[in-house]
Amino acid sequence: MTGKVFVDLAISLDGYSAGPDAGPDNPIGTNGPGLHNWMYEQAAFIGGHGDEGGLTGPDNDLILEKINRAGAFILGRRMFDEGEVHWGDPSPFDGPVFVLTNSPREPWKRKNNTFYFVTDGIESALAKARAAAGDKDVQISGGADTVRQYLDAGLIDDMELHIAPVLLGAGNRLFEGIAPGLRELTPTRVQDSPYGVVHLRYDLPR
Amino acid sequence: MTGKVFVDLAISLDGYSAGPDAGPDNPIGTNGPGLHNWMYEQAAFIGGHGDEGGLTGPDNDLILEKINRAGAFILGRRMFDEGEVHWGDPSPFDGPVFVLTNSPREPWKRKNNTFYFVTDGIESALAKARAAAGDKDVQISGGADTVRQYLDAGLIDDMELHIAPVLLGAGNRLFEGIAPGLRELTPTRVQDSPYGVVHLRYDLPR
Repeated sequence: MTGKVFVDLAISLDGYSAGPDAGPDNPIGTNGPGLHNWMYEQAAFIGGHGDEGGLTGPDNDLILEKINRAGAFILGRRMFDEGEVHWGDPSPFDGPVFVLTNSPREPWKRKNNTFYFVTDGIESALAKARAAAGDKDVQISGGADTVRQYLDAGLIDDMELHIAPVLLGAGNRLFEGIAPGLRELTPTRVQDSPYGVVHLRYDLPR
Repeated sequence: MTGKVFVDLAISLDGYSAGPDAGPDNPIGTNGPGLHNWMYEQAAFIGGHGDEGGLTGPDNDLILEKINRAGAFILGRRMFDEGEVHWGDPSPFDGPVFVLTNSPREPWKRKNNTFYFVTDGIESALAKARAAAGDKDVQISGGADTVRQYLDAGLIDDMELHIAPVLLGAGNRLFEGIAPGLRELTPTRVQDSPYGVVHLRYDLPR
């Protein structure tokens, strides 16, 4: 095994990675896009969407670090459905994406990458993503349901959470319904930000 | 209005302020006491329980700051019931405590303070606590249900959360069932710790 398996998600202080009523017409749910406010002005984010300009600094460095380590991506079907109608060509993913689904589908080719649809489970998707990533890491991109499945299977090495300074009170909560029981994490980094977000990084027990 | 109304609670990374099956025989619930690991060796905590010794430094300073600002305390009935059989005399509260309850009871006097039982609601308890605190602040000590009631009533000025590096997957979640809708908080402090906890402080909208 070479690369690591990682998660990088923004959540509200009350733990939601998406607001309520998320769907293709309302990506990230009501009030959900605000979880990512710290990101939108950063050069690496703007560049990832094909535009120029933006800020550099510690927040931007975090995005660059994430981009540079990820060699392949795993998405849940709902996150893909929410994104498909909005992502352009090239897509925001600079590497192969494996979508967990029950509905077989031919690969969806973009200028910069291909989306593959995996119908035989999370471990199969991870094996495919690992092979595609080579020496790089695999990012479990989301949504929350997909992260939870990999978390409960003990397949995540590390996790960066961007805690946004908001309460949502509703939506899709990242850690809703994980297996009960104590899991001790190893904090590896705390990074403050002028955007009010705090970036927390943890290694997970395997 | 003079003093502030504040909350100071440890929670797991998945948001639980107590583990499952909490009660007088299992205070803070299963795996709940571990949320406070950063606190147990600090001089201010040890001194608050009548003993000597312990560590000093930034974590200890946080405890001292909290102790010094609190002039009165508000507790929910379940937190009181969990604690009553364990708290000695003097109690761990250096000031009057107002317990929210439906069952009238005569004040419970300890060497260092008195517990009063308030049956006419959270606003009445807060008015009594404010009057008792004078120029000092009122701490909504918990549990989570009580914090949520004051939060939804817009009566909390600021909140310090100590995010412990654990997942519990079960228990009493601090922000479970708050009113849905966006609330934007103002972060005022991020403090890292050698104990793996991160201390996050926010001002709340009023």
